[in-house]
Amino acid sequence: MDTLERVDAYWRAANYLAVGQIYLLGNPLLAEPLTPEHIKPRLLGHWGTTPGLNFCFAHLNRVIGERGQDMIYIAGPGHGGPAAVAHSWLEGSYSEVYPEVSQDEAGMRRLFRRFSFPGGIPSHVAPETPGSIHEGGELGYSLAHAYGAAFDNPDLVVACVVGDGEAETGPLAASWHSNKFLDPRRDGVVLPILHLNGYKIANPAVLARIPSEDLIKLMEGYGYRPHLVEGDDPAVMHPLMAQTLDTVFGEIDAYKHGQTDRLPMIVLRTPKGWTGPKEVDGLPVEGTWRSHQVPLATVRENPAHLAMLEQWMRSYRPDELFDADGRPVQEILQTVPAGDLRMSASPHANGGTLLRPLALPDFREHAVEVGAPGTATTEPTRVLGRFLRDVVAANPHNFRVMGPDETDSNRLSALFEVTARAWHARILPTDQHLAAGGRVMEVLSEHLCQGWLEGYLLTGRHGLFNCYEAFIHIVDAMFNQHAKWLDTAREIAWRRPVASLNYLLSSHVWRQDHNGFSHQDPGFLDVVVNKKASVVRVYLPPDANTLLSVADHCLRSRDYVNVIVAGKQPVIDLFPIDQAVVHCTRGLGIIDWASNDQGAEPDVVMACAGDVPTLETLAAVDLLREHLPALKVRVVNVVDLMRLQPSTEHPHGMSDAEFDALFTTDKPVIFNFHGYPWLIHRLTYRRHGHHNIHVRGYKEEGTTTTPFDMAMLNDIDRYHLVMDVIDRVPGLAVTTAHLRQQMTDARLRARAHTRDHGEDMPDIRDWTWTR
Amino acid sequence: MDTLERVDAYWRAANYLAVGQIYLLGNPLLAEPLTPEHIKPRLLGHWGTTPGLNFCFAHLNRVIGERGQDMIYIAGPGHGGPAAVAHSWLEGSYSEVYPEVSQDEAGMRRLFRRFSFPGGIPSHVAPETPGSIHEGGELGYSLAHAYGAAFDNPDLVVACVVGDGEAETGPLAASWHSNKFLDPRRDGVVLPILHLNGYKIANPAVLARIPSEDLIKLMEGYGYRPHLVEGDDPAVMHPLMAQTLDTVFGEIDAYKHGQTDRLPMIVLRTPKGWTGPKEVDGLPVEGTWRSHQVPLATVRENPAHLAMLEQWMRSYRPDELFDADGRPVQEILQTVPAGDLRMSASPHANGGTLLRPLALPDFREHAVEVGAPGTATTEPTRVLGRFLRDVVAANPHNFRVMGPDETDSNRLSALFEVTARAWHARILPTDQHLAAGGRVMEVLSEHLCQGWLEGYLLTGRHGLFNCYEAFIHIVDAMFNQHAKWLDTAREIAWRRPVASLNYLLSSHVWRQDHNGFSHQDPGFLDVVVNKKASVVRVYLPPDANTLLSVADHCLRSRDYVNVIVAGKQPVIDLFPIDQAVVHCTRGLGIIDWASNDQGAEPDVVMACAGDVPTLETLAAVDLLREHLPALKVRVVNVVDLMRLQPSTEHPHGMSDAEFDALFTTDKPVIFNFHGYPWLIHRLTYRRHGHHNIHVRGYKEEGTTTTPFDMAMLNDIDRYHLVMDVIDRVPGLAVTTAHLRQQMTDARLRARAHTRDHGEDMPDIRDWTWTR
Repeated sequence: MDTLERVDAYWRAANYLAVGQIYLLGNPLLAEPLTPEHIKPRLLGHWGTTPGLNFCFAHLNRVIGERGQDMIYIAGPGHGGPAAVAHSWLEGSYSEVYPEVSQDEAGMRRLFRRFSFPGGIPSHVAPETPGSIHEGGELGYSLAHAYGAAFDNPDLVVACVVGDGEAETGPLAASWHSNKFLDPRRDGVVLPILHLNGYKIANPAVLARIPSEDLIKLMEGYGYRPHLVEGDDPAVMHPLMAQTLDTVFGEIDAYKHGQTDRLPMIVLRTPKGWTGPKEVDGLPVEGTWRSHQVPLATVRENPAHLAMLEQWMRSYRPDELFDADGRPVQEILQTVPAGDLRMSASPHANGGTLLRPLALPDFREHAVEVGAPGTATTEPTRVLGRFLRDVVAANPHNFRVMGPDETDSNRLSALFEVTARAWHARILPTDQHLAAGGRVMEVLSEHLCQGWLEGYLLTGRHGLFNCYEAFIHIVDAMFNQHAKWLDTAREIAWRRPVASLNYLLSSHVWRQDHNGFSHQDPGFLDVVVNKKASVVRVYLPPDANTLLSVADHCLRSRDYVNVIVAGKQPVIDLFPIDQAVVHCTRGLGIIDWASNDQGAEPDVVMACAGDVPTLETLAAVDLLREHLPALKVRVVNVVDLMRLQPSTEHPHGMSDAEFDALFTTDKPVIFNFHGYPWLIHRLTYRRHGHHNIHVRGYKEEGTTTTPFDMAMLNDIDRYHLVMDVIDRVPGLAVTTAHLRQQMTDARLRARAHTRDHGEDMPDIRDWTWTR
Repeated sequence: MDTLERVDAYWRAANYLAVGQIYLLGNPLLAEPLTPEHIKPRLLGHWGTTPGLNFCFAHLNRVIGERGQDMIYIAGPGHGGPAAVAHSWLEGSYSEVYPEVSQDEAGMRRLFRRFSFPGGIPSHVAPETPGSIHEGGELGYSLAHAYGAAFDNPDLVVACVVGDGEAETGPLAASWHSNKFLDPRRDGVVLPILHLNGYKIANPAVLARIPSEDLIKLMEGYGYRPHLVEGDDPAVMHPLMAQTLDTVFGEIDAYKHGQTDRLPMIVLRTPKGWTGPKEVDGLPVEGTWRSHQVPLATVRENPAHLAMLEQWMRSYRPDELFDADGRPVQEILQTVPAGDLRMSASPHANGGTLLRPLALPDFREHAVEVGAPGTATTEPTRVLGRFLRDVVAANPHNFRVMGPDETDSNRLSALFEVTARAWHARILPTDQHLAAGGRVMEVLSEHLCQGWLEGYLLTGRHGLFNCYEAFIHIVDAMFNQHAKWLDTAREIAWRRPVASLNYLLSSHVWRQDHNGFSHQDPGFLDVVVNKKASVVRVYLPPDANTLLSVADHCLRSRDYVNVIVAGKQPVIDLFPIDQAVVHCTRGLGIIDWASNDQGAEPDVVMACAGDVPTLETLAAVDLLREHLPALKVRVVNVVDLMRLQPSTEHPHGMSDAEFDALFTTDKPVIFNFHGYPWLIHRLTYRRHGHHNIHVRGYKEEGTTTTPFDMAMLNDIDRYHLVMDVIDRVPGLAVTTAHLRQQMTDARLRARAHTRDHGEDMPDIRDWTWTR
């Protein structure tokens, strides 16, 4: 066999294994004629995209073998599961991590059976699939993941097959522009292969039906050098693909050597369900949407279909591909790259194996000096920016900060003292902080920020995504998928832990002074807590020092999604750094200096989470001190939201005894919360004192107005909290009717004042505890 | 003045008004020298994009005037508020809907003051802005909205200015391909104007920095005929823009007459902050990101800045633009189109004024015959498809069904008996159901489906978006923005109600037989209920007839977002159609034939919402009848989830008395829920009996397995529900230890069986109530 004959044999073997996965329970080598008993009772799986994926994989393996090229493979088409699994089995990596699925007949049988079978493996590429960093569930993120993997991996080529279905999604359409953020020297290369097989589920795909000249222009417009590989005759397609890949890798060399700014890409046009049944029951199948899932649907019941299946499988000539024991023949094994060069065994695709902990400078060095607590203010994210600056400086090759053009707006500007925004397009003399290889990645697409970061993390690096709070909902679905990936991956022994995905949400709901209602939405937290407790963490540091402590903790963690909500506007300094660390380590605690219950049972617990709610709670407590000095008030601040849950529900959860000791079981708790109030109820509904917890939070009241007016619109303001205390503490309502009226009047005055004058938050008062 | 001089005067007037909005509290006509007292205390707003938006608007008005062209204007750049407001005021439409903002000096002062001021109007285009269907908050949806507005409006041109910032987003990048879904005969035309002013917030924009030849190819690749208008000298730019628009509208005529398939688009390259300060404090401002917001930041404090502001405003020569009373001069008013042709007064942009109710055929005609309830099964969405088919047939010009290539998969296939998928690209002989003007719009982009539908609805038409349940999270953020739009618009007297946005979520969490974990997420409901009760509705019809009744109700409703979750797999028929209507009208109710409490106090309430949970609840009740015939069981099914809330929280909410009568205040309630269980707690936590409500639902346990195994993994299965009853009904645990063990054994057997055989849901049992 010559080289291309071996590639063809490998391709046929992979196709055979894919068909076997979809159909067979037994008789994997077709040692005997197929009977209905060999067929799975329910046929589930996707054939259509598989032969094209196999074709690419087979040809890329030749290049890897010849060039010793470090490469990984991202299968964008959602249902490419049978292909990826087939390769891993052919390359031996499947049996290495799943020894029970040995590289022989018995293993092949087990492989076929587990595919898309109850308790088995999904029909798409998944965490269970060796060599994968990209799940083929929700579509649209393959190319962003590919670029994320390529950043800071200068010797890597990420081959990324983009399906023509997913190519219609927004995130994918934007991802092509990622080439403007790639540094030829410090980063690797992405080789996109747009695979046009013509159809999505039941429809033609847009890119498959536009004129070829439009498609070529589109790809050139995106900044690539497109190469068309088109046809359905393997005898023609093999040499064409091989020549094209040789050309393409020559162009990649030229790019890496600075001889061109254009990276190549391939348009591969092959029939959907290529090499499968051409016609079934009188209807065309190969080359149409009918081959998307299971081309022959009633194989168990219909002998003609059964015969067609056998004919189809035998068309790959399995006798030439596998020996009598079911092992791939030598000619096929020869095409498999060695060790870690196998794409199904690449350490890049099991990033935890490559993960180096961040060199973390001491965050305490950036601490704000806190004298009398609650008397000065600081912009927390500005302080965090200095810490992140030092993190970047200490980790120039494996840490990036992503954001949709909001790094400055979110006041992380100190980063630009040591690095720039990644930019590989034209730079003008008036520009600032733009450079290839910059550690800050800004693109006005939350999807790209998220997708790049996921790819970067899953290949063993670290990062942080800073975003306006309201617009992080844009990636709700991507967060869901990543959390599910982490949850699944944690249970897979051979997958090593990766760095957590860290969100910093700033420009939050309470501070949208001119943006107004459209920019007010703290609901991402509700989406996050729907995911498994084993993978999600939520932090609401109330001041700069607690933000530093939380950020340090998150950057050290593994396999989580950490959500940090922190303000960029000045907030009051509450905790000297040592106390901040203690407070964050506990996750919540009593603010002693603001409480006057002196360890006894309080009359009321004033709880708070989030910077603005904490300010208002403290201001309310100050009013209570002034007007009701005998009232025993306990102030509890919550940083780690997951602490509120029972310990049976979340690893961070408190025992009931701890919870009861802090919040009491029978005293009113006025809980002032950053987000939608019911989240606190949801987290605490099993607690003894739950019926006494009265939560204030954002209740979707908003407009273009001052922050203090926002607080009042949603009843989280100091005056309203005092009224809540009056209404909730037994006996107070009667004796303090005058105070209630005073608070009502104060609110009206405050609203009129803030609306008329357009001022910021009220000045920090002359707190009673500092007098 | 000649025509272009008038256009220039109009442009200068609009620019003047925009600057005034950002800066001035008083002295709107500069009748006296500016003093600090004339300046707002906080300067909030966005200048950068405004002059470009004004330029387009001014020139389009000329075309409207000359051609009598029906046109609306969509301002994609987020912060184009000052521009849109200025136009509306100049065109008189602002004063028509806000008479206090009269078209004179007093009105101009009020206009300036309310802009980006507490309690005023946002700095971006919003529902409050006459002539707008597109909020400039979250970016990326302008072009999809534009196409949505153009569908079925054959005489309309939608001018859509795309900002170079938002052009980086995924949804926008995909939206260009909307031209493949436009029918030249039945639909209107979208004229995209890609406005490259070079920068987003703090960064250059990608499309502004790629080579011009790449940009042209990109647009050609997207299928447009691009026209470049570039420069910064108004004397050159005015004739260039005018000539280009004449050419472009000639090409639009050719397209409408079938002489070309290509629509034109314009690339407009002008400096950011055009005509604003060129340099401030020694730094370049015009033409850089520094002009994004407020070019002169300290006008009140810095006399030099104050002088520059005055110089800047006087550069527009206000004396020539407004008469002594502050009214626009005659030459400007002459450029304003007449009546409804004014883009700021177009009825299309206040779609409720054009809304015609759907001609709704009688859904009862599609009802499933139900004999003994719970003994036969039907695919609910297949039945719905027949009703939708008749809706399409009866409303061929104002109703569309959107979906990401899942209309067939979601079994709405009957639609294709009367219509096709909209498609204006190449069609092959093997294709089915593709045609220009088809009522079904399928593109593999949930963003486009949502964006098109929003644009379609806001211009006065009707529609439905069908989607896999898990992937509707892709548009969480768009849903949020649309719900906020509706919430705001409801409070604006001149905005007329529009048709509700109806979601049909199918292929839901419980039926992902081969797709597995990545396709399992019922959390969209949690996102939805965070929005105002006045605009959101959630329905979980348990069978085909209730789905019909709910769908009919939703299609008649106005100004809501309706979410319907319904299965496509066979579910048991429960309600004859008349009972279904009664049940849906009530929103929830006792299933009499499954209950045996005979109107007395039950021992336990078995509540359910959603098709699979309802099946399992009924099966559990069946087991209880068999094993514990003396136990008094009440079965309550919930269709309208909002009924669970207190009437004080949601218009659909029940009074406590009603709730207590149904659910009791002291008996255990075993609530089997479709989604994440805490949502039921959240909706019911204020109810008297809340501490007795025990909720089962999806708890993020999933894998590739059978539906019944999924139920078991999440403890919503019949056996576990019986165990819950045993554990919760006082006294039962002791007397029925054997039954509990029996249930445990049955679960183990059922799991082994379902995993081994890969079967569907267990057959409907020989229900006790039918014996």
